[in-house]
Amino acid sequence: MLDNYSLGLREDFDQENIVSLDVDLSKAKDTTECFDFLSDKIKGQPCVIWHLAANSDIVSGIKNPNVDLNDTFMTTLNLLEACRKFGIDEFNFASSSAVYGDWADTQLIESLGPLRPISNYGAMKLASEALISAYTESCLQKVNIFRFPNVVGTPATHGVVLDFVRNLSGSAQNKLEVLGNGTQQKIYLHVVDLVAAILHVQNEFNERFNVINIGNTDLGVSVSKIAESVRDYLNPDAEITYQKSDKGWLGDVPRYSFDVGKLLDSGWRPQFSSIEAIAKTIEEIVADERG
Amino acid sequence: MLDNYSLGLREDFDQENIVSLDVDLSKAKDTTECFDFLSDKIKGQPCVIWHLAANSDIVSGIKNPNVDLNDTFMTTLNLLEACRKFGIDEFNFASSSAVYGDWADTQLIESLGPLRPISNYGAMKLASEALISAYTESCLQKVNIFRFPNVVGTPATHGVVLDFVRNLSGSAQNKLEVLGNGTQQKIYLHVVDLVAAILHVQNEFNERFNVINIGNTDLGVSVSKIAESVRDYLNPDAEITYQKSDKGWLGDVPRYSFDVGKLLDSGWRPQFSSIEAIAKTIEEIVADERG
Repeated sequence: MLDNYSLGLREDFDQENIVSLDVDLSKAKDTTECFDFLSDKIKGQPCVIWHLAANSDIVSGIKNPNVDLNDTFMTTLNLLEACRKFGIDEFNFASSSAVYGDWADTQLIESLGPLRPISNYGAMKLASEALISAYTESCLQKVNIFRFPNVVGTPATHGVVLDFVRNLSGSAQNKLEVLGNGTQQKIYLHVVDLVAAILHVQNEFNERFNVINIGNTDLGVSVSKIAESVRDYLNPDAEITYQKSDKGWLGDVPRYSFDVGKLLDSGWRPQFSSIEAIAKTIEEIVADERG
Repeated sequence: MLDNYSLGLREDFDQENIVSLDVDLSKAKDTTECFDFLSDKIKGQPCVIWHLAANSDIVSGIKNPNVDLNDTFMTTLNLLEACRKFGIDEFNFASSSAVYGDWADTQLIESLGPLRPISNYGAMKLASEALISAYTESCLQKVNIFRFPNVVGTPATHGVVLDFVRNLSGSAQNKLEVLGNGTQQKIYLHVVDLVAAILHVQNEFNERFNVINIGNTDLGVSVSKIAESVRDYLNPDAEITYQKSDKGWLGDVPRYSFDVGKLLDSGWRPQFSSIEAIAKTIEEIVADERG
């Protein structure tokens, strides 16, 4: 487990069979030193990289391109160089539905092009996919690129449910201010389903280079519905206010239809629908916040 | 005209109406300083960026990922940041057929996905496209991304024709050693046609974000045919030798079918076919080399 622990908590990974190292993978030198340190452990062993390190705050990345450049793209480049130097040939990457950009009602299927991300977050995810593809030619033998939807569940570090819960648990308990007009409609997958899906892909997809949408099978949940669910759970009398724009922020894709046919065809099914995942997450986050 | 003059000659651009600056656009600070210096000239003027700066040596970029990272991707990022800071809203980018990767006989059309470049050269071109897309959301008003084929003509800094001419003009005049088995078949566009095509796209395509394949309308020319043409022109008695692989080098796409229907539908036609472009380039390069 390699992380800079800027968001995640180290204690979440302190288990007997996990070695946790505090390392900034956006720095080439630190990454190489880290793999040098680990090289005795991985030498001659089957070794798989799960690259989940990235910036997760789309808004901060639009203000400053170095955020996604360093935390998403350079971490990918440095890990790929580690694969090349240390003979690691299996690579799994958490990409995003944000690589597609805003296509309104067009079904977002893996074979769509040209992609047109509208945030540096999405751009650096797509840039990472491109680089991983090049390394598949030169050194990797098995690559899975997962294009994630909005993921919910705990431990939560950001996202709409956490924002709403904190808003209604704070000093302004009677007013929930929503970014955008509430019509943004997105699919959500619970992290439990996400983990099951990516392990399923790793087992069932045998191409050398796989790009797979991971998502739910429904049409998603509107932001206004999420706001109402959080309000009903925490404070049924609170007032919900909306803005005029259908975008919550610059770089926000207000709605998308995510085609997960490739994943479903392989036999995978989610345990929770989008609305069930949201309901479960509200309970989990409220429990965590009340800690 | 901003360049680091690592390959091009400054004298080619020393004309009365061109300001040439020697600047390394891969460095954020140098790029900002350069645009600060130019800001009086561009203030309030309609301003268009033509971003052609990039590494052009695919092989060197596979050995060291920093080559394409700096010269292709970071130059793009720094120029986009300059657009944002200095209010420049039109951006033209020289991308490449290398963004597609190796699809054998599949027609390479702009709507193809997911793309799977096989070199850092192609990956950093695709990464640049992704980033330009994100900046189209935040600040650019008109973007043209040209996916170039193999381009020939003079002044030549690299490429198969220059290699073969130099090989047969050097000390080993009787032997032409070809990388790969000679069956690599590619389309070639003469630089005269390339310039006409990109100006045509700039005038005729009115979408905010355009991605256009630029290429020839024929099936291309094999490397063995180019080798024979150079031999016949310079030394008909020379022996041509081939290697076993159908790839000239790691990261080489041995053949591709480039769909230029979108460009043709808009009314553009090339002046020279692939084989004519090669023949013209042999004459031009030999004349240049004999100086």
